[in-house]
Amino acid sequence: MEVDVNHVINHLHRTPTVLRSMLQGLPPEWITNNEGGQTWSPFDVVGHLIHGERTDWIPRAKIILESGENREFDPFDRYAQFEESKGKKIDELLDLFEIFRLDSIHSLKMMKLLPEDLKKKGKHPEFGRVTLGELLAAWVAHDLDHIVQISRTMSRQYRDEVGPWRVYLSVMR
Amino acid sequence: MEVDVNHVINHLHRTPTVLRSMLQGLPPEWITNNEGGQTWSPFDVVGHLIHGERTDWIPRAKIILESGENREFDPFDRYAQFEESKGKKIDELLDLFEIFRLDSIHSLKMMKLLPEDLKKKGKHPEFGRVTLGELLAAWVAHDLDHIVQISRTMSRQYRDEVGPWRVYLSVMR
Repeated sequence: MEVDVNHVINHLHRTPTVLRSMLQGLPPEWITNNEGGQTWSPFDVVGHLIHGERTDWIPRAKIILESGENREFDPFDRYAQFEESKGKKIDELLDLFEIFRLDSIHSLKMMKLLPEDLKKKGKHPEFGRVTLGELLAAWVAHDLDHIVQISRTMSRQYRDEVGPWRVYLSVMR
Repeated sequence: MEVDVNHVINHLHRTPTVLRSMLQGLPPEWITNNEGGQTWSPFDVVGHLIHGERTDWIPRAKIILESGENREFDPFDRYAQFEESKGKKIDELLDLFEIFRLDSIHSLKMMKLLPEDLKKKGKHPEFGRVTLGELLAAWVAHDLDHIVQISRTMSRQYRDEVGPWRVYLSVMR
């Protein structure tokens, strides 16, 4: 489906509300339990999304618009949340994510992007040449990917408790 | 994690709001596109959840409490939504799901279940003996499973558009 900036904003605007309706007021173990090993809890995921708002999506869009392929993006730290979220509660993270996301959307609107702008190119430290349209599509898909992860992680807390229904629940496999 | 009726109600109460925040007001193609072939769109999934409220979860809990293993559950029709949702809009489905879910939660509260009630047994047409606790855990996990499915389905609409970011988006695989 073709990337449309208004659709992108429509999706991006939803995620803080989706996360709040999924997580705010849950008993703590549902927030901090993960899928085992080095996997992430819902708490870790929200911290990761906050770090993305601050250092990834809008900063990279600005680099594309201002410098094109001449300036490579800064690498994204996928583990920053383990330090940054320390001592915080989930409610604070949900508030911070909403604030940073609204600020990102404001910045995106101020760019007044036209369809042809989505073809503009930037330089990713790992992938090489990427376009602004790919960056925006990845931002939306990344939100949805982490909603998948949070839902799956919570569902798996009942892996044993669902008994034989396990066979009909694809997340348990 | 042990099944606690109050936690179950806490989760069940969230799902209509989560679905509304994900779907209401999206452009129609995001609602009706599926993952290809015979897979379900977000529209199909919401219809399926409505059918479950009407014919599956609470009716089966009542059978367990009233008849135990003496009365086998009615089989669940996993394709009913294709007929029942015909001609409806997503907003109507979201409203119906919320109404039926609130009614289900009311019925569940009226059962005034004690921890020992969760060990009560029923007879599933396919699995044989199941417990009320397994039924309630499966209800919560089933909601989360379908939130996973809706998020994944929407994310995959941008499968091509995300370009090289595909490798970092686990839902695309």
